Formats: sequence, C-alpha cells, structure tokens
Amino acid sequence: MSQSIQNDEIEVVLYNGKQIERIDYSTYIREKNASESDVVWINVDKEKDQAQIDTILKPFGVHPLIIEDILLEGQRPKLETYEEYAYLNCKMIYFDGEELAYENLSILFDQQTVITIGDHDGDVFSTIRKRLEVPTSNLRQGKADHLVYAILDAIVDAYFDVLETLGDLIDAREEDLLVKPNMDLLTILRQYKRDLLYLHKAIWPLREVLSRMINDEPKEIRKETVPYLRDVYDHIYQCIDSIETYRELLSGMMDLYLSSISNRMNEIMKVLTIISTIFIPLTFIAGVYGMNFHYMPELTSQWGYPLTLIGMAFIALLMVYYFKRKKWF
Amino acid sequence: MSQSIQNDEIEVVLYNGKQIERIDYSTYIREKNASESDVVWINVDKEKDQAQIDTILKPFGVHPLIIEDILLEGQRPKLETYEEYAYLNCKMIYFDGEELAYENLSILFDQQTVITIGDHDGDVFSTIRKRLEVPTSNLRQGKADHLVYAILDAIVDAYFDVLETLGDLIDAREEDLLVKPNMDLLTILRQYKRDLLYLHKAIWPLREVLSRMINDEPKEIRKETVPYLRDVYDHIYQCIDSIETYRELLSGMMDLYLSSISNRMNEIMKVLTIISTIFIPLTFIAGVYGMNFHYMPELTSQWGYPLTLIGMAFIALLMVYYFKRKKWF
Amino acid sequence: MSQSIQNDEIEVVLYNGKQIERIDYSTYIREKNASESDVVWINVDKEKDQAQIDTILKPFGVHPLIIEDILLEGQRPKLETYEEYAYLNCKMIYFDGEELAYENLSILFDQQTVITIGDHDGDVFSTIRKRLEVPTSNLRQGKADHLVYAILDAIVDAYFDVLETLGDLIDAREEDLLVKPNMDLLTILRQYKRDLLYLHKAIWPLREVLSRMINDEPKEIRKETVPYLRDVYDHIYQCIDSIETYRELLSGMMDLYLSSISNRMNEIMKVLTIISTIFIPLTFIAGVYGMNFHYMPELTSQWGYPLTLIGMAFIALLMVYYFKRKKWF
Amino acid sequence: MSQSIQNDEIEVVLYNGKQIERIDYSTYIREKNASESDVVWINVDKEKDQAQIDTILKPFGVHPLIIEDILLEGQRPKLETYEEYAYLNCKMIYFDGEELAYENLSILFDQQTVITIGDHDGDVFSTIRKRLEVPTSNLRQGKADHLVYAILDAIVDAYFDVLETLGDLIDAREEDLLVKPNMDLLTILRQYKRDLLYLHKAIWPLREVLSRMINDEPKEIRKETVPYLRDVYDHIYQCIDSIETYRELLSGMMDLYLSSISNRMNEIMKVLTIISTIFIPLTFIAGVYGMNFHYMPELTSQWGYPLTLIGMAFIALLMVYYFKRKKWF
Amino acid sequence: MSQSIQNDEIEVVLYNGKQIERIDYSTYIREKNASESDVVWINVDKEKDQAQIDTILKPFGVHPLIIEDILLEGQRPKLETYEEYAYLNCKMIYFDGEELAYENLSILFDQQTVITIGDHDGDVFSTIRKRLEVPTSNLRQGKADHLVYAILDAIVDAYFDVLETLGDLIDAREEDLLVKPNMDLLTILRQYKRDLLYLHKAIWPLREVLSRMINDEPKEIRKETVPYLRDVYDHIYQCIDSIETYRELLSGMMDLYLSSISNRMNEIMKVLTIISTIFIPLTFIAGVYGMNFHYMPELTSQWGYPLTLIGMAFIALLMVYYFKRKKWF
Repeated sequence: MSQSIQNDEIEVVLYNGKQIERIDYSTYIREKNASESDVVWINVDKEKDQAQIDTILKPFGVHPLIIEDILLEGQRPKLETYEEYAYLNCKMIYFDGEELAYENLSILFDQQTVITIGDHDGDVFSTIRKRLEVPTSNLRQGKADHLVYAILDAIVDAYFDVLETLGDLIDAREEDLLVKPNMDLLTILRQYKRDLLYLHKAIWPLREVLSRMINDEPKEIRKETVPYLRDVYDHIYQCIDSIETYRELLSGMMDLYLSSISNRMNEIMKVLTIISTIFIPLTFIAGVYGMNFHYMPELTSQWGYPLTLIGMAFIALLMVYYFKRKKWF
Repeated sequence: MSQSIQNDEIEVVLYNGKQIERIDYSTYIREKNASESDVVWINVDKEKDQAQIDTILKPFGVHPLIIEDILLEGQRPKLETYEEYAYLNCKMIYFDGEELAYENLSILFDQQTVITIGDHDGDVFSTIRKRLEVPTSNLRQGKADHLVYAILDAIVDAYFDVLETLGDLIDAREEDLLVKPNMDLLTILRQYKRDLLYLHKAIWPLREVLSRMINDEPKEIRKETVPYLRDVYDHIYQCIDSIETYRELLSGMMDLYLSSISNRMNEIMKVLTIISTIFIPLTFIAGVYGMNFHYMPELTSQWGYPLTLIGMAFIALLMVYYFKRKKWF
Repeated sequence: MSQSIQNDEIEVVLYNGKQIERIDYSTYIREKNASESDVVWINVDKEKDQAQIDTILKPFGVHPLIIEDILLEGQRPKLETYEEYAYLNCKMIYFDGEELAYENLSILFDQQTVITIGDHDGDVFSTIRKRLEVPTSNLRQGKADHLVYAILDAIVDAYFDVLETLGDLIDAREEDLLVKPNMDLLTILRQYKRDLLYLHKAIWPLREVLSRMINDEPKEIRKETVPYLRDVYDHIYQCIDSIETYRELLSGMMDLYLSSISNRMNEIMKVLTIISTIFIPLTFIAGVYGMNFHYMPELTSQWGYPLTLIGMAFIALLMVYYFKRKKWF
Repeated sequence: MSQSIQNDEIEVVLYNGKQIERIDYSTYIREKNASESDVVWINVDKEKDQAQIDTILKPFGVHPLIIEDILLEGQRPKLETYEEYAYLNCKMIYFDGEELAYENLSILFDQQTVITIGDHDGDVFSTIRKRLEVPTSNLRQGKADHLVYAILDAIVDAYFDVLETLGDLIDAREEDLLVKPNMDLLTILRQYKRDLLYLHKAIWPLREVLSRMINDEPKEIRKETVPYLRDVYDHIYQCIDSIETYRELLSGMMDLYLSSISNRMNEIMKVLTIISTIFIPLTFIAGVYGMNFHYMPELTSQWGYPLTLIGMAFIALLMVYYFKRKKWF
Repeated sequence: MSQSIQNDEIEVVLYNGKQIERIDYSTYIREKNASESDVVWINVDKEKDQAQIDTILKPFGVHPLIIEDILLEGQRPKLETYEEYAYLNCKMIYFDGEELAYENLSILFDQQTVITIGDHDGDVFSTIRKRLEVPTSNLRQGKADHLVYAILDAIVDAYFDVLETLGDLIDAREEDLLVKPNMDLLTILRQYKRDLLYLHKAIWPLREVLSRMINDEPKEIRKETVPYLRDVYDHIYQCIDSIETYRELLSGMMDLYLSSISNRMNEIMKVLTIISTIFIPLTFIAGVYGMNFHYMPELTSQWGYPLTLIGMAFIALLMVYYFKRKKWF
C-alpha cells in the first residue's frame, strides 16, 4: 500500500443478513476475506489526487479512462457499464450555509462490491449507516445493488431537501416583493434562477442514468431491485418538475417585480407632473400681473388682486376636477 | 383489526349486475364473502397515517414502496403494474371557495377489487354512487375495470368543471381589463397563470397513465373497457388543450394590460407636458416685461399691455395648432 | 320512427356510377333498398338533442360513447375505428360576418354508407352536391371512401378560404400600422392572434387523423383513395404552415406597433422637453432683472434692456445649435 | 397537339455519353425516338393553364392530382412516388431586384425521362446546360437521376447565393445601427426577418424530400447517385443553419436597436432635465427678490444684488458638483 | 509529384509500438514502405487550392465530392463512410488574440492511414506529437483509430480551453455590470452571445459524428477504441452544456443590465422631478407677490416678507415630508 493513503480515510464495511463488520482497507486488500454472501462497501471520502485513486482502484482493475473521469470536476452524471463492473457518476447537492454546494460522487459496483468516491469530507450517507445496523432492514437483507439503490435514494432525498429550502426562500421573497420591491431583491431572484439552472443541469442527466439501470438490465442489477430504482426514477422526475415550476414562478416574480417597479415609478412621475402642470399656468398669470407696463387698468382696480387670486384658485380647481374626472389620479 | 380504524370511515361496496351490498370493512375482511362475480369497492376517505394504511392494506399484500407513495403528498400521477394488482395515482382537483384544492387519490385494483384512498373527506364520486344504484347501468353490469374507468371519468369531469370556471373568471377579467386596468388585476391574472401551471403539472402525466392503460394491455383491463378509457384519454387531451389556450390568452391579456397601462400613462404625460410647454414661453414673455430696466420703451406705450396679451394668445394658438397638426393630441 | 324527426331535415342520397336518387329517410330505413354497388350518404344538418341522434343512429348500431361525443361541443378532431364502422370528428370553419364560426362535423362511415352530422343549418358541401350530379365525376365513380375524401377536401378548402381572408385582413392592418398606429389596432391584432390560436387548435389534430387514415390502412379506405387523402394531408400541412407564418407576422406587427408608439411618444416628449429647456434659462434671466434691488447698475443703463434681449437670443440660439449638433432633433 | 402550345416554349434535350440532341416537343412525342441509353429532359418554362399542362403531360399518364398540384401556387416542397414515376416539388429562389422571388418548380422523373415545369420564364439551369455540352462531364455520363441531382444542386446553390446576399445586407445594416439608429432601419430589419421566415418555410421541407430520396431507395435513384444527393442534403442543412444564425443575429440587432434608441433618449431627457433642475431653484430666488413687499431689507442693501448673484452661482455649482459626483452626467 | 507541393509542408509520420519515423511525403508515395503494423499519419497544414489537394489525395483514390468539401469553407461537421475510408470534418477553435478563430479540419482515415488537412499553419496537435515520442503511450501502442481519437480529443480539449476563457471573461463582465453599467458593456455581452451562437453551431453537429462513430460500428473503428470515443462524446456534451449555461447566464446579465440601467435612470428622473416639484409652487408664490397691483395689503405689512418666507419654507418641508413618507426618495 502506498503510504499516502491512511486507512482511516477509507471506510470498508462487509455485511450480510447475519453480520456486519468494519475493517481496515489494507486488511481487506491483504486478506480478501469477504465470503460469497457478503456485500462489500468501500467508501473513500477525501480530496484525491491521481496517485491515491490509482492505488485504491488498482486491485480492482479499473479502466484508466474511469480514473480520469473520477478525478475530473464538473462531470455530467452518467452510467457506463463495463464487462466486470459498472461506473456511475452523480452529484451530491446540499446547502453549505447560504450557498449551494455540488460534490461529485463516483460509484463503482459489481454484484458484490460497491466503491463510492466523494470529493470532500462529509456525505449524505448517515441514514444508510443507521439502516446497516438493523439486521432486518431491506438494506442488510439485500445485495450490492440494493446498496447502490440506497445510495441513490439518499442522494435524491437530499435533492428534495435542497428544493424544499429553495422553495421556501422563493416564497419568502414573494411576500417581500409585494411589500417593498427593490433592486437587491431582483439580484436575489436572479441568484435563485441561476441556482435552479445549475440544479437542472446536475439532476436532468441522472434521469437517463436511472432509466438505463431500469431498462437495459445490466447484470449488476437484479430484477427485485428494479421497483426500487423505479421509485428513485419517479422522485428524480418530481425534482425536475419542481425545478420547472420554481423557474416559472421565478420568471413570473421577476416580471411582476418589473411591472410593479415601473408602475410605482409611473405613479410618482404622474403625481409630480400633475403638480407642476397645475402651478405653471398660475405662475404665468402671476407673471402677467408682474409686468411693468404703465397702462394696465387691472392693476389700479381695487378688486384686481382678490379677483386674480380667486381666478387662480378657480383655474386650479378646474384642473384638479378635470384630472380627477379623467381618473388621472 | 387495529382499533385506530373506525369501520364507518371505510366504505365497502360489493355489487354485481343483480345485487348491491354495503358492508362493514371488518366484516368484509373477516368473512371474505365476495363471490367470484362480485366487484368489491373499498373507499378510504380520511387523513391517513402510516399505521392505518398499513392495517388497511395488509390483507392485500401491497408492496411497501406503494404504501410509502400513498402517504407522500405531491406525488406525480403514475401507473405501476405489479404481478397481483395495479397501482394508479392521480389528483382530484376542485374549487375550494376561491382557491383550487388538490387532493391525492391512490387507486389499487385487480380484476375484482378496487381500493381508493383519498387525502380528505369528500370526493367527486357522487355520480358513481348514484349510477351504482341503477341495476341496468353499464357500471353495475361491468367489472372492476369499469369501476376504475368510472372513477377516472369522474375525476376528469371535475377537471372540466374547474377549467370552465377558470375560463369564465378569465373572461370576466378580460372585460375589466378594457374598463379599468390596474395593478390588482395583474396580480389576479398572475394567480390564474399559476393555477394553470399547477393544473398542467397535475393533468399532463395522467395522459401517459391512460396511454399505458390503453396500449400496454395490463391484465386488469379487459378489451371491452378500452374504448371507454380512450374516451377519458381524449378528455384529458382536451383539458390540456384548454389549459394551453387559457395560458396563451392570459399571456395575451397580460401583454395587453402592460400596453394599455403604458399607453394610458403616455397619454397623460403627453397632455401634461403639452400644457407646460405652451405656458413656459408665455411665462418667459411675462418675465421679460416684468424686468425693471429703466429704458424699456414698450412699457410706456399705451398699447404695450394689450398687444403683449394678444401676442401671447397668438403664440399659444400657434403652438396648439402646430401640436394638433402633428397629431400630438 | 320518432315523430320528433322530420324527414326533410335529413338528406339521404343513394348513388352509383349510373344513377343517383334522393329519398326520404324513413323510406330508406323501411325499405333498406340500397343495392350492393350503391353509396349511401345520410346528411343530418340540424341542431340535435340526444333523443334525435339516438333515433337516427339506432338502426346502425353505433357505440353509446360515440353518440355522447357527437352531442358534445368543443370536441378535438379525431378518428376512431370500430369493428363495423369508423368515426371521424372535425370542424367546419367559416366567416360568419366578421367573426369566425366553428361547427362540429361528425362523420360515420363504413364501406358503403357515410353519415354526416353537423351542428347547424348550412354546410360547405355545395360543390359535393354539384359534382354528385355529374355521372362521370370521380366522386360518382368512387365508393364511400371517396365521398369521405370529398367531404374532408371541401372542409380543408374552406380552411384555405378562411386563412386567405384572414391573411388579407392582416395585410390591410399592416398598412394602417404605418399610417396611424393606435390602441384599437392593437386590439384588432390581438383578436386575429386569438383567431389563429383557435384555428391552430382546430386544424392541428386533423393532421393526425389524416395520417392515421393513410398509414393505418383501416378497412374502410381503399388503396386507390390513399393518394387523394395524402393530398388533403398536404393541404392541412399548408394550412398549419400558413397559420404559423401569420402568427409570426402578427407578432412582428405587434412588436413594430409597440416600437412605433414608443418611438412617436419619445419624439414628442423630446421636442416638448427641448422647448422647455430653452426657455427655462431665459426665464431665469428675466427673473433676475425683475428683482427689486435698489442697486442694480444694469437697470439704469440705457443699453441694459436691448443687450439683455440680445443676450437671451444668443443663449437660445446657442442651445438650439448645441442640440442640433448633438442630433437631438 | 393542341395549338395553344408552341414548340419553342418547350425545351427537349436527348443525350447520352456520346451525343446530345435538341428536338421539337411535337417531333419527340410523334417519333418517340429516344433510345434506351438516352436521358430525355423536357423543360417547360412558361406560365401555365390547366389545358396546356394537361396536353403536355397526357402522353406520360400523370395522375390528375399531380396536375392540380403543378397548377397550384404556394405548394409545400414534397416528394411523391408513384408506380411509374416520381413527383418532386420545390422552390427556385432568387433576388428579383431588391425583392426575393419564389418560383415553383415541379420535377417529374422516372429512370429515363425528367420533366421540369417552372412558373415563369428564366431559371437557374444555365450551368446545367453548359455542363451538358461537355461529353466527359459526370452529368453527360450519368442517367436521369444524375440530371435530377444536378437540378436540385443548382437550386440549392441559388439558395446559397440568396443567403450570402442577405448576409451581406444584414452586415451592412449592423454598421448603420451603430452610426445612426432610426425607425426606417427597424423596418428594414423586419423585412429581412420576414424574408428569412419565408426562406425557412421554403427550404425546410426540402430537407425531408432529400432525406426520403436517400433513405427510401426509390427505384428512380441509383445507388451511385446517393452520395451526390447526400451532398445536396448537407448543403440544405447548411442553408437552414445559416437562416437560423441570421435570424438570431437579426433578433440581437433589433434588441440592440431598441436598447440604443432608449439609451439615447434617456441620455437626452436626463441632460434636459438636469438643465431645468438647475435653473428652477435659481428662478425661484429671482422670484423672491422680485416680490414687491415694502419691507425687504436685502433690497436696499448695496450688496444685495451682487451677493444674490454670487449665491445663485454657488447653488448652481453645488448642484452641478452633486450631479457630477453622482455620475448623473 | 506536382512541383507546387513542397515536401516540408506535408508531415508524414510512420510509427508502431517499436519505432517511429518521419519521412518525406514524396519518398513515402514513391516507396510505399509502410509495413502492415505501421500507422501512417499524413498532416497537411497549409492553405490549399484544388490542384494541390488533388495531387496529395490522388494516390488514395478519394471521391471528388470529398475534395470539393475539403476546399469549401464553412462546412458543417460530419462523418461520411465510404467503402475504403471514412471522411470526418470538424472545426478547430481557438482564441486568436481577442477574437475566436475557426479552422476547418478534414480527417480521412482507414485502418492504417490517417490524413489530416487543416486550413492554416498551426494546429492543436502538439500534445499528440509529444505522446508519439513515448513508445509506451497508448497512442504509440494503438492503431490508426486511436490516432483519430487522439486528434478529436485534442480538438475537444481546445474547445474546453476556449469555453473556460469565455467563462472567465463573462464572469469579469458580471462584476463590471454591478459597478458601472454602460452601453459598451452591452455591446461586449452581445459579442459573447454571438460567439456562443457560432460555437454551438460548430460543436453541436460533432456530437452526432461521435455518436455515429460509436454506434454504427464503422469498420475503421475497433471495439477497443469505443470507450475512448465515448469519453470524447461525453466531453462534447459537457461543452454543449456549458454553452447552454453561458447563454442563459448572458441572457440573465443582459436583462439585469437593462433593469439596472432603467432603474438608475428612473432614480435620476425621480430626484430631478422632485426638486422641480418642490420649487414650482414656491416660485408661484413669489410670482404672486411680484404682481404690481396697487392694492395688495400684504405688501405693505411689515411682517409680509418674513411671513411669506416662513410660509414657503413650511410648504417645502411639508412636501419633502410627504414625499419621504410615501417613500418616493
């Protein structure tokens, strides 16, 4: 074994319906002591370099292109079946604080062994570990393909969690939208839209992966497991449906935002313009009687000033009345 | 029987062409007294928890994944065929006051028995119950698959009702739009659009369910029932067509709303600006003769004032004429 | 026969290559005197209720679901083949004054008999009746399937007429758009768009009907008739193409309308604002020399007034020149 | 022969690898002197009425529906294969001055004879005629299907010319857009968009025609000719690609036009409004000191006037500074 | 050999697992000294005319249509399989300074020989040349199809580089967008959008080329190479995904740009209009007391002036307060 791999970074679980055992990776490789009926789960959960992955996968005779794929970030979820094993790639998605985090997960499996390789520490497998402790669970009773199902199920359940959180956030913003629309809100909505775009990109191809696992009858999948996979397939479809729905809702909210901003602005400009429009003719009249012509009979009349004021008030009221009748405000 | 299930929450109907009988669920389970020719309809119509559903479905040997699905809200309509029975999931939709209500309906059926499980009290099955009372009805003469058809038909008819109501509401808003466009109207239109989005999401997958019932020839469906199912299929298609049409109408109305709001606003701003534009040069003239220069010959002329007024009127008329000729108002 | 059906509301034509005969519906039913080589066309052309349709179709053993479909308005065009006959549903479309009218047409046919049931008085069959009078016409020489073709051809020709009229109307509006864009025009364009939406909805599924008549080889259609049906199929495709084209043209016109309205409005506002902007500084200057300070040396200067006027003119010209150079008007 | 057809309107060419002969149509029909190895090309190039086409095509036993199709304008490109010959319809497209002209071309062909019928005088066949003169050309060495290929190739080459011209025109407009955006430009862009719409409508179905000629293996097409047809197919695809690209470019240009117009307008309005905003408070101050109150101490102060002017200048500068700092102009 | 071809413009490499040799093109043609186990790579990397290409490809018996295709610019990527060899066309894409450069690459290959013909000097093959020097590399151990794979892999890797650079540029613009939105930025974004349009057009058809190489099992591709090609296929899909994502991001950025520009403009106009609106009534009041009526009691009052000023300040504050409360600024 290369010294760069520490045993405690690799989790090796051997189990069957009767017993479950956690052993050292190096012990496992040395002794190959898994009996026929055992399922072997090897979980590598650490940032990887080529050498480490090579070392770990060497004993299993994995195609070099797959190792390249495992090391690549930003892979598209896919299933590849080789003669001796199948290779499945998908994304674990979760909220890391306020940001969505995407983690590549590679699953290599044959009828007995399942190897999972994640990008970082941490995973969504806690429920699997718990269920493995229960001897009567479907998982413990099942074969390697049931473990693969359980892993995919856990991943897709995490998608649901993410989508629910996102849905709640969007709903909360909808209320904000009605109370105080502002530019920051639009930026947030755009961020959600972008999140949904990436989510769609990550989840959509997984649908095809499941479809192939169900319909192409790869030898690694037993017939009993197909209904379970179909269930995962349905869940993926619901995720995609939800994403679609949220995207349409967001588009609607953005349109509403723009309408309401522009509506508000129009209202303000209208009121301001109406105020100006009322005063401009009055100011003109005042201007007229501020002219210094020597012969302006109105100026000398005792009633000139009050009549002018009354006339101005009358004109103002007339305009207000006219604007009101036209429903301009 | 678990004590948590009260017999009166479960409706058990046994019928054939000659007789119809309503019995207790517990009696039915105990005595299993349905003859070969009987159709058995078990209708569970209550909010459920896992234990209850388990208890009810245990005697029928239902797959655990289905029970999970029944308990889940927000399922996508689907059909799953197992060896002994088929599982169908769809939505009942109706107006609950002003809001659209969605209720999950799970249908489990084999050649003799139909189990329906709804979310809440109340359903759309009243016409079915009525027709069950008529010994000569197709329903009474038919087998379990005809009952399944009748249930689906009732559900899709309820879709039509919902769509018709929604169509009337949209039409009513269209008239409002021409009379007094306002922001609230836009919010209402958006709500309708969202309703149509959810309706589409609920109805669209049902099309595939029916298609599979027609084309995959599951053993639960007899050949005689296929034309009836095809009829339901056509109706679903018409629903989807209507939804599409309403969506396009709504989009058109929203565009019209925005155009008409912006048109109205433009008209107002134009009139107001024209008023200002006419008075501003006049005010300038008044300002000129309000200057206090000692040597302003016009001021001392007896005709200065009237001529200025006439000049102002002339300028105002000229501008009005110019704006009119340019068709600015 | 039920007394509610009057013979003269039902047109019964028996014809073959040699002779053609119009007889009473009741006579036809009583005597069943059509020879093997005859084609029988029964045309029911009246508003219907269930009882009448039942009475008319009873002698032919029609499935109850079909009768339901015939009575339903707003059916989606479709073809259904049963053991003994085929059922085809489509829309007759024509201009009723300024409005588009849609009329359901149900066609039931086997190898010898064609029954057509329309919603209202009036139809598009006049050319068919004329051609039936000509013994050497393809129609007279043909069998029942050729009559079905002739009916479909007449219906699709009517679509062409409608689309041509609509196309002319749209073209006429295009010219209006350039001369005097206004809100009413937009409402009219929206009406056309809605018409095209409904037309598309009515014509699109017919394409599938024809495709099935051509490719599924129903026993009612002889091989010789297939090229004719293919011709109708091509025509339907051209209709759909035209609808698409008109829709894109309309969208373009609406965009142009909005651009041109907004352009016009911008131009007006710009001119008005420029006028204000020129006068506001001048008014300020006038205001300055209208101040009543006791020590304002310019006021007492003999050249104060004319120089001020010249200064104002100079400023105005400078601004006009600046705006012109900036191409602001 | 009908006297309405003049021989010189019909071009009849008989050729094989060794010799080429141009003869009268009437001679050809009378003598039927084409040897087995000859290819016969009959090119009718004149506005047609039913009688003429009937007369020309009668000797070849053409289906009446095809004759109808040939006479119809606005046909959708299509291929129809009959027992004895194939019928192909497509569009010749070229610039007629500044406008795009569309001309229907009907091609009837079997293994030996090719009949082409165009709408008007003039065609795109000059290169074909030239190549026919060269005994060693592929065309002269080939059979009737190679002639069909050559005709289609010439037509599609003409599409390329049209698209190239259109591309150049669009590019030229792009530059105009940056220099002086105006309403006329938008009208021109819309015209191009419409041209592309019609081009797409004319070219798109031809792709299917070629696909069927390649894949359905009609007996009129020999295996050697398939690579040539595949070449035409690729060219059609490139045409469609170009159309798509031009449409997207045009949409982008229109969006840019609208943005730049609205940007320009905003800039103008902003500058004008800033000018007004600076002068309005100054005018107010002038107005204050223009009031005629008897007791206004500032008025009598010797420094009142200059201080006011300085104050005004200060306020103006302050506002300009504030606007500048806010980057408002 | 034609004298127009200089040997040093054509790179001929013969290699197998054991040895690698670079020889003159003319030598190669003259001696045909490649052994069975050798792979021959002929790389032509120069601007071409018909004669040169003819001369080079003559010894290999290439179909004239292919030579035409090689000479044509703006080809659509495609794969054509002939009896003796396969022809593949694709684009090399790289940044040439700030502009994207597209270079046609034609690949002709059979089981032993690979001929690559590029448009210009320079290529993306440096890594291939390096790997050819390593005797143990997969490439050296492989056959001609592995060389084809290596070439396609190098080309698609270059796509990744281009997309990454473009992605970085877009990200950089996003930040600019928030700091200082302006018209130039929009022009740049449009340029990126156009680049993505052309990239999509160049890459999308390559997906089909690879799909056919994988699924149609052309004889030139050995089974061992298929996983490698599938890897390239996945990479192409990721490129297309990235393009889609960038396009959506760009659309979002453009929408944001427009919103933020319009938001900014609205804010400015609002502030300016509010300033005007506050001063216009005040100016009116000043105008009133600037009137020259002889009997205006306020004028003679000692408190007239200060009270008027106080009134004006009060009105101004009231309006500011009102606008503030309405959240207008």
